[in-house]
Amino acid sequence: MSSKPIGIFDSGVGGLTVLAATRRLLPNESLVYLGDTARVPYGNKSAETILKYSEECCAFLASKNVKAIVIACNTASAHALPYLQHRFHFPIIGVIEPGVEEALRVSKNRHIGLIGTEATVRSEIYAKELKKRDSLATVSSQACPLFVPLVEEDWLDNEITRAVAQKYLTSFGESNIDTLILGCTHYPLLKKVIGELLGPQVSLIDSAEAIARKCLTLFGEGASLPAGRQAKVSGSFSPLEIYITDFSSRFESIAKRFLETTLPPIKKAVL
Amino acid sequence: MSSKPIGIFDSGVGGLTVLAATRRLLPNESLVYLGDTARVPYGNKSAETILKYSEECCAFLASKNVKAIVIACNTASAHALPYLQHRFHFPIIGVIEPGVEEALRVSKNRHIGLIGTEATVRSEIYAKELKKRDSLATVSSQACPLFVPLVEEDWLDNEITRAVAQKYLTSFGESNIDTLILGCTHYPLLKKVIGELLGPQVSLIDSAEAIARKCLTLFGEGASLPAGRQAKVSGSFSPLEIYITDFSSRFESIAKRFLETTLPPIKKAVL
Repeated sequence: MSSKPIGIFDSGVGGLTVLAATRRLLPNESLVYLGDTARVPYGNKSAETILKYSEECCAFLASKNVKAIVIACNTASAHALPYLQHRFHFPIIGVIEPGVEEALRVSKNRHIGLIGTEATVRSEIYAKELKKRDSLATVSSQACPLFVPLVEEDWLDNEITRAVAQKYLTSFGESNIDTLILGCTHYPLLKKVIGELLGPQVSLIDSAEAIARKCLTLFGEGASLPAGRQAKVSGSFSPLEIYITDFSSRFESIAKRFLETTLPPIKKAVL
Repeated sequence: MSSKPIGIFDSGVGGLTVLAATRRLLPNESLVYLGDTARVPYGNKSAETILKYSEECCAFLASKNVKAIVIACNTASAHALPYLQHRFHFPIIGVIEPGVEEALRVSKNRHIGLIGTEATVRSEIYAKELKKRDSLATVSSQACPLFVPLVEEDWLDNEITRAVAQKYLTSFGESNIDTLILGCTHYPLLKKVIGELLGPQVSLIDSAEAIARKCLTLFGEGASLPAGRQAKVSGSFSPLEIYITDFSSRFESIAKRFLETTLPPIKKAVL
């Protein structure tokens, strides 16, 4: 495989969970991250606008000479993936397919829950992708618009977050799901609260992990080593670049929470 | 005065509270509203980006031949007003000055509280404007990032909203404020919860009302009548146009909540 970097794009900081998981599984890959912080969030916007913004972000990453793009944003994956795959001449991997495949692998009763932004839930893409692979699968979904601002406020496990989660997740009470897809890259940070409310009988699917495994399958560990370089020792990584479209005051503190490591100097992208 | 319309601009739907108040006080004025729903919210973005977006919105309203622009967005007023006043050759009225003047009129002990978005609070513009008019005034401020998503979720008065408000407003407990400026156009919809928590000894300043009164002073009721037209009877209004930059699924339902009236056909603005 080529030594060109893999691009990762998200509407904001949430995709850093995908970046972190991808780095852990593919430490020899160079990565370029773009967060469209100037226009975040995408989840409450129209399909047309989501498509336009996603295309601009992918064009920016294409200009960085990437060999593939991971769309870490569920909302963008839900609305723009086929178009982007048609538009660009390198592999573009969405976050939905890996999450769906993992959910079907884990679920025993085929009753699968989905939580996501308004736009993701409205797209019904998860239901379509699940049914395509297993016509007997049933899907219950719930939009959780307050989860993203709660994570950005760093209220990950207080009484307010628990009350909000309880209000949103009540709808799953009677649907007998045994698996819940966390259909937004912010949500893994609320795993503890969600898991406690739904109980151990419901498996939580973290798309970040699923997409990283998909990348491992596609790009393979050994094959991704640039010619003439040694495999990295544990804890050592290939170059990482992080671009954002707006330097908001909270980006660094939120980013550290997501990435769980030291950040490289962050650069501004002009789209 | 000219029969040209007054432009009102906000980052999203919140400015419709200003539109509603302005229509009540100036029913003979034609109004053009622009909500930048494709890039909402502004409150978590940098000063540079807020300035760029605000300029684009004002340029759009200028193309509609407005005689003045009301910047209904606190965040945009905080960061972009002097620049916009320099850039355009008609009056541009921000939402901060009317709120500040009203607070100083109402407050007895000169201890004034402010709640707003992160960007508004960070700008310290309210403190500067208050001190400029009364050097003895003291200001306590608190960013409330979850208030906007709570209003957009239509959770205006439930136990979660009360818990969030309590958490944010605790900081005012010891500051002895007698007046609180609601420094974001979404916040008047939370007046009931905020008022109950702070008690009757704290007056709440709704910038929408204050800015409408400012417009009344500037444009005057009788003077605003286009030549040859009769004063409107109560309940009858001059033309109103509403533009948004993105048709999100929830815009109409949220807009109705803010405007408390039937909406005209909403048009898309391309900036």
